Amino acid sequence: MALRPEHVVALVGGVGGAKLAAGLVRILPPEQLTIVVNTGDDFWHYGLRICPDLDTVMYTLGGLVDPVNGWGVAGDTTALLDALKRYGEDAWFRLGDQDVATHLLRSEALRNGERLTEVTRQLTNKLGILHPLLPMTDAPVETMIDTVEYGELPFQTYFVRYRWQPTMKALRYAGADHAEASPEVIAALENADAILIAPSNPWLSLAPMLAVKPFRELLLEKNVPRVAVSPIVAGTAIKGPAAKLMAELGYDVSPRSVADFYGDLISGFVYDIQDSNLKISGKKTFMTDTIMRDQADRERLAGQILDWITAEVWD
Amino acid sequence: MALRPEHVVALVGGVGGAKLAAGLVRILPPEQLTIVVNTGDDFWHYGLRICPDLDTVMYTLGGLVDPVNGWGVAGDTTALLDALKRYGEDAWFRLGDQDVATHLLRSEALRNGERLTEVTRQLTNKLGILHPLLPMTDAPVETMIDTVEYGELPFQTYFVRYRWQPTMKALRYAGADHAEASPEVIAALENADAILIAPSNPWLSLAPMLAVKPFRELLLEKNVPRVAVSPIVAGTAIKGPAAKLMAELGYDVSPRSVADFYGDLISGFVYDIQDSNLKISGKKTFMTDTIMRDQADRERLAGQILDWITAEVWD
Repeated sequence: MALRPEHVVALVGGVGGAKLAAGLVRILPPEQLTIVVNTGDDFWHYGLRICPDLDTVMYTLGGLVDPVNGWGVAGDTTALLDALKRYGEDAWFRLGDQDVATHLLRSEALRNGERLTEVTRQLTNKLGILHPLLPMTDAPVETMIDTVEYGELPFQTYFVRYRWQPTMKALRYAGADHAEASPEVIAALENADAILIAPSNPWLSLAPMLAVKPFRELLLEKNVPRVAVSPIVAGTAIKGPAAKLMAELGYDVSPRSVADFYGDLISGFVYDIQDSNLKISGKKTFMTDTIMRDQADRERLAGQILDWITAEVWD
Repeated sequence: MALRPEHVVALVGGVGGAKLAAGLVRILPPEQLTIVVNTGDDFWHYGLRICPDLDTVMYTLGGLVDPVNGWGVAGDTTALLDALKRYGEDAWFRLGDQDVATHLLRSEALRNGERLTEVTRQLTNKLGILHPLLPMTDAPVETMIDTVEYGELPFQTYFVRYRWQPTMKALRYAGADHAEASPEVIAALENADAILIAPSNPWLSLAPMLAVKPFRELLLEKNVPRVAVSPIVAGTAIKGPAAKLMAELGYDVSPRSVADFYGDLISGFVYDIQDSNLKISGKKTFMTDTIMRDQADRERLAGQILDWITAEVWD
């Protein structure tokens, strides 16, 4: 019988990724798990560097996250945001008062020349998070959405200001050509004996990461299980715009399209029992209940995936 | 009988200055009053440019000020500050959640190259303040306090962090040598037919201003009433460290020391009825109840001073 993987790297986006990460951290100790987070959604707003996915994962693992939204700090208030409105600001991006403390500390450190990787390490340490949480890169990468209605929009303008209602024509990841994964990310990937891609949005959360060198190259040359979990279940997305944008970009809204999107980058695929008639060729597959309703679900799913990776023969 | 002054410039610091300004604005229309504010207390903190005196005057005139403290926004909360503490921050400077909205907008505009004068104009406009509120200069001037216990401290460290308890040996106004009053301030002073110095701390609120060129020169050459209101009443300060620092710097804690401090810069002096035996030579003097307990007091004092300036013969 195979040994459990000892160095797992999880590639994650926002809420869905944070949930799987919250399951994994209860099973794997800090030295056996590295969580790499999308930063393509990051932006400057009122002089604050906001990293939505990093914050969502950090607040989730730190036990601070709003349990209803799945992002932001539980019980956070918006006195600052309301005061911005008093100055005539549109204030379309929700800035929670507690949340801004994170942004302030991060922005000041970045302005002082610290790397986002280092800043994130300090913030997570202070919140008692022991597992390494790594931004995919320290360089700026900006997901840009070309829309029918408004032309090209920065990600947060599309996602939050327009509530992902504009019709997507295309995406690009500005800056990715010149960005490199951080040394910490590269070391984690090189050292990995299993790589998990969370049920995050492939186009919005994973593609920005895969556009950064040498993610794609490292994944292709790693002879270890590389497993993606489908964010598409029964023809729709568990959360967010994945299904909508897949239809707009001309994809069939099915787990198969997700598996095809990752292609050779993955050797294994996890999909939901609601898609029991799915056939995926050329990859190992595992079917289970992938919906994470609560913390027990997260730990169950994480454990099942790790057990399957251990039991499967990956040759 | 003389005419009421038509172009009054009020030089103000924080709470005491804001109170007199709140009286003046009810008597003089915007085109007849310019309020010039100390910026020697300003500092960067968590990447925010905080201008305590400007904010105090702005919140007071905008009807937002905390009526108990005399500074900050009424009913403001500290969720952000508490979240900073969660990250292990000392958080010695009170950052109200609503207050931070002001700092964010100001800091972003300054980073974009706008002048503090312009930023302040925009913020005050949004709060419905019609009277011009001018920072004394757009250049950085930092009041530095040399203390027996800790050596030299930046102003806010002395004032807030150590609650003005260290013993003051000396003061300096770093940057003042290279700072110039803004064109708007110079124009207002040149156009003034009366200059009022509020009952603010002469050493902490007025001296930084007077250290900036060409304040002193303009005041000395203006042949108009130049009137200071004593912040010292009956041997003590109405608020703050004025009396303590006067004693530490070797001054007699009396209105006379204040009048002597301003010297030739003023031609008139207003002091409190509690100091009825005060004798000041070489200046016109006016004795009244200078304590501003409420808005009625502020308007009464402002009106009395303007009436006295009008009635007095200044030759």
